[in-house]
This record gives sequence, C-alpha cells and structure tokens, in this order.
Amino acid sequence: MAEHLSQSELDYPFKLLEYFNGFRISKAIFSACELGVFDLLLQSQKPMSAVEVAQKLGTSEDGIERLLGVLVAIEIVDVEVVQGTAFYSSTDVANLYLAKTSPKSLHDLIIYNSQTIYPLWNNLVDAVREGKNQNEKTFGLPSEEIFSAIYRSEEEMLKFMGLMNSTWVIDGHDIVTAFDLSSFKTVIDLGGCSGALARELAKEYPSSTVTVLDLPAVVQTAQRHFTQQDDTICFQEGDFFEGEIPPADLYILARIIHDWKEDKNLKLLKKIHTACHPGGGVLIAEALLFENRRGPTMVQMFSLNMLVQTEGKEHPPSHYTRLLTDAGFRDVQVCRTGKSYDAILALK
Amino acid sequence: MAEHLSQSELDYPFKLLEYFNGFRISKAIFSACELGVFDLLLQSQKPMSAVEVAQKLGTSEDGIERLLGVLVAIEIVDVEVVQGTAFYSSTDVANLYLAKTSPKSLHDLIIYNSQTIYPLWNNLVDAVREGKNQNEKTFGLPSEEIFSAIYRSEEEMLKFMGLMNSTWVIDGHDIVTAFDLSSFKTVIDLGGCSGALARELAKEYPSSTVTVLDLPAVVQTAQRHFTQQDDTICFQEGDFFEGEIPPADLYILARIIHDWKEDKNLKLLKKIHTACHPGGGVLIAEALLFENRRGPTMVQMFSLNMLVQTEGKEHPPSHYTRLLTDAGFRDVQVCRTGKSYDAILALK
Repeated sequence: MAEHLSQSELDYPFKLLEYFNGFRISKAIFSACELGVFDLLLQSQKPMSAVEVAQKLGTSEDGIERLLGVLVAIEIVDVEVVQGTAFYSSTDVANLYLAKTSPKSLHDLIIYNSQTIYPLWNNLVDAVREGKNQNEKTFGLPSEEIFSAIYRSEEEMLKFMGLMNSTWVIDGHDIVTAFDLSSFKTVIDLGGCSGALARELAKEYPSSTVTVLDLPAVVQTAQRHFTQQDDTICFQEGDFFEGEIPPADLYILARIIHDWKEDKNLKLLKKIHTACHPGGGVLIAEALLFENRRGPTMVQMFSLNMLVQTEGKEHPPSHYTRLLTDAGFRDVQVCRTGKSYDAILALK
Repeated sequence: MAEHLSQSELDYPFKLLEYFNGFRISKAIFSACELGVFDLLLQSQKPMSAVEVAQKLGTSEDGIERLLGVLVAIEIVDVEVVQGTAFYSSTDVANLYLAKTSPKSLHDLIIYNSQTIYPLWNNLVDAVREGKNQNEKTFGLPSEEIFSAIYRSEEEMLKFMGLMNSTWVIDGHDIVTAFDLSSFKTVIDLGGCSGALARELAKEYPSSTVTVLDLPAVVQTAQRHFTQQDDTICFQEGDFFEGEIPPADLYILARIIHDWKEDKNLKLLKKIHTACHPGGGVLIAEALLFENRRGPTMVQMFSLNMLVQTEGKEHPPSHYTRLLTDAGFRDVQVCRTGKSYDAILALK
C-alpha cells in the first residue's frame, strides 16, 4: 500500500480537504476577475473599503466583502483595518497577472476557465464513462466538431484566442529559447492563433521572418483584436489540414497535436515534412507527461481536460519522438522548461 | 503594496496557476468517488490495469486511464508499471477517507460538493452582485426558503444529511472534547441531523442523555438511514424556530447559527436561554474567522459558500460572544480546534 500523501493525513485529512476546496478557490479568483476587482484596486490610488468597492463595481457590499476576505486569505489582496473598517489594496502579483491592463495579464485565460472549462468539468463523470468530450451535454454543441464548438461565435472565438494569448505571454519566451532557432530564417506558426508565440519568436530572432497561418476567421479576429503597433509578424489565412502548407525552414505546432487523434497528427506531420525545406524542422510546444506515469500533476490534469473538451490528449516525450520519426523527421530533441509547456525540436 | 505570495511568483505564477487548476483537482477526486474508483481499488486483492477498472466500472478505458493518472499524480492512488502496462492500487488515505465503506468515509461530503455546491459556485459572480444565494438560478428553487431548497426531495435530503454526517465523523470528537461537558446530564442537539455529533458526545460522556431534535422528515430519514446498532442517542421531532424547545442542561447548535441572519439567531438563542436549566449552557460548533480579517482561508471560503447557498455567514469569535451575551448567556469560552470546526461554550 502506498504512503505518498503525508501519513499525518491519516490523523486528519488537511490536504484532502484542501483538494475538495480547490473549486472554490478557483471560482473566487475567477469571479473577482470577472467583476473587475483587480482592475479597480490597481487603478485606485488608495486602499478601498468594501462599501467603496461595491459602489464602484455595482455589487452587494456583503458579497464583495466576503469575496475580498477570501482573496486576502490566499494573499492576493491585502487588508488593513482602521478603526474597525477594513481597507483593501492590491498586491504585486495581482497587479502583474490578474489586472486586465498588465502586459502579463492572465485575465483572458481566467475568463475562459471560468465560463467554459468549469461548466464542462461538471460533466467529468460522463466524459470518463463515455470516453468523449462534453461539448454537447454542456453547451448543446456537436461533440465531433471540436473547433466548431470552441469557435461557435465571435465572442467565444475571442475568448479562446485570449486564453491562447495569455498562455504564450507567460510561457512563450521559454519555448522559443528552449533551442537555438537562429538558423531557421522562415518560420510558420501553424494554428498560431493570436500570434503571441510568433511574436516571442520574432523578438528573440529578429532576422527571421515569422508568419502565423490559421483559419480565415481566426486571422481576421487576430488582426482586429491582437495586432500590436510595429507588429513584427505576418498573418496568412489557410487550413493546414485541408489546404496547402507553404514551404518554410521551421514549422511551429504549439498545442495543436494534443487536440487530435494519432492518425490525424501523423498525416499532418508527414504533410509538414514534405513542405519543409531540407535542413529545416518542426518545433512542437506541448505539456509533457513523465514516462513513468506519475505526473506532472498539471499535465495529467491537462490530459483529462483534453478528454472533456477535445479529441486529443497529452503524451510523454517518447510518443512525440515516435510520431516525428514515423513522419520522416530525425534528431528529435526534448526540452522540459519546468514551466507549463515544454518544447520538442526535430529536423528534416 | 503587499508582498505576501512568494516574490518568485513575479517570475512565474506557479501558485496562481495551481489555484486556477483547483477546480479540476476537486472534480477529478469527486468524479472518481462518484464512479466508485476507490471502492473498487479497496476491494480488489491486487493492483488493477485501466482496462480492468474500466470493465468493472463500465467506463471508457481511455477516460479512466486519464483519471487514474491524475489520482496518481496527486498521490491518492499508486501505480506500478509492469512490461509497459500500468497497474493501479489504492493508498491508505484513499481507503480511509474516499472508500464508501470506511467508517471515516467522506464519500457523502464529496457527492454533495460535486453535485450541489460545484454547480452553485458557477453562479458566484451573480451571488456577489446580488448579495444572495443562487438556489433559484442554479436549481430553479426559491432563494428565500433555504431548507426547502436543501431538502427539496428525499434524495437531496439524504445527500445533505450525508454531508453533515461526514463532517462530524471526522470533526465531532474535537468538538465534544473542546470543553469538559461531563456536568451536563441532559443534552439536546438542535438540528442535529443524522446524529453523528450527538453520537460522539454520547460516546465521550456515557452518563449523559443525548437527544437530537430536528424536523420530522429529517428525524425519520435519520432513523431510516443513519441509526446504528445499539444507538446511544434519542431522536425527537420538532421545529426549534416555530415550536417548543424542551428543557435541558446543554443545547448544541452545530452549524446552525451560520445559516441565518442575526435577528433570527438572537431570537433563537433567547428562546434557548429561557428553556435552559439554571447552570446549563449552549455549545456552538462553527468555523471561526480570525478577528483580523486575514483568514483562515477555509473559513473565508465557507463564508462565501454561505452567501451562495444560504442567508447566513461565518463570523469571528467576538460576534458569537456578543450574540450570546445579548441573549442572556455568560462566561463565553472559545476553543479553536485547529481542524475545520471550532467550539464555543456559554453558560446560563
């Protein structure tokens, strides 16, 4: 019998109760984001009482006071009590990651988790029973067409693109610096969405030309909502499954492989191999499981998430090595970044 | 600006991402309970493959394998890989708290959290905006009649009673030993539900007579589902708000005060004071906030939960002291147990 969780749990299940409470912590932070708590506290020049916060945000005083109480307890909001009244102020961490205006804001990732993934996970029992995603039961959307579900309206598309954008704003630099990519002069990010990862790459390798290839509607939304002044990347409309893949030195597949079944991925990688310039390569960014099946926790969780939401799953490095080799690539190198996403480079 | 969360969060938000992922951890454990994973692994004489678990539980192999992967990563299931196949086995912690048959099982608490509280918290934004519970939006139930919502069917009543029962199975001993209660010979647990806390008290003080007073439907359900062989406690049908409170030496109010608004609680405590034998008292079991408004995290979370589900909230000790004093009680003593629930004793 294993004894991994501290033996003291057998006296009292502190850690288990913390796990059971996890959904409340998530939803408290998510809801504070949705209500604009962190933006208000950042903008405020001085600590604010619950009454003031409630007035500015149009909420009940009692409700916001309890929510602020939770945020204080988990140390992402600070409190000072003056003559019996609590005054709340933001923290560096909240200002950096939770306020909407911060360049490292995770606001969009939070909104997507709160409004899309949280309700999907309410049907996890059915997902495990049936072995398929719960888009139909949760949102009345066909389970076979995963991107029809994800992109079901412009609002939903924008939310999903915001999620992807948030991810690469905090994880992109580690991905593009996992290997020296300076020899690849033309780079295409297939399914590059808002362009956040492509921008990180263009910043790190200014002599490379970086293009995002994605579905027309995605490219148009990216150009409307995510383009930056002096943007260093190009966008190209296309469909890398159904249409042509233009020639390039390096292709990026960031969180693409994990959406699909193996046969579809193998076909895609073979198509990329054909299009790729000799000496070129493919860079895959995914969260990698351990080979020993013991984690990492976050990646096991992502893999379960892919069940609930898509057709795909997460894999250990050996799976990607085999897939890339089967598609004709060689010299597969794996880099675990220690953050949420890892990088794999293979050459033609 | 506060700097509570580790400064290293500013480099990469590991802790924040863990918080965001909290709902997935909760739902993974909850769903494994609902599917019977822990019961099966406990009953099995040997480690089982995902294929075997899937067959026994009637789930997909892929889904159960991913779920087991998560449970391994958080160390409540163990894995051994033999010739490429993973074999899963239970852990002491899972056997004690997650298997249904264990005397310390938290199974019912988990089911209630998964099926009732998780969906309620999907409407947390509205709860904070409106300052009221979300029974109507979540389940189409009137928000004013909180126990009509909680007890809307026999199945729901049983689930809620199971939740309460689980709590006192792990927390009851600390509550009844927080003070020496041996001088109180007749004890009435008002709203004592399944009787789990009353049983702990009767076990600790065998010379006391312990009665659970609760609504007729609750008493009948308790007698049908929670009575034990050689039960040492009595049940009495009644309504402590609308009906009479019988005389006794000690009254227990365990997780009652936190359900209701202050005027209702004060009226109840005055009524108890009138019924109480001279020299008798009242024992309140609740989760206590810190006076400084900085936690504990779990209690701040409970208080937000009361917003989402009831009319009440959690309080610091000073609130209970004032309430009890206003009702005529004296010598208020507070004991923090260090577990989920604390105890307050006051005398007439």
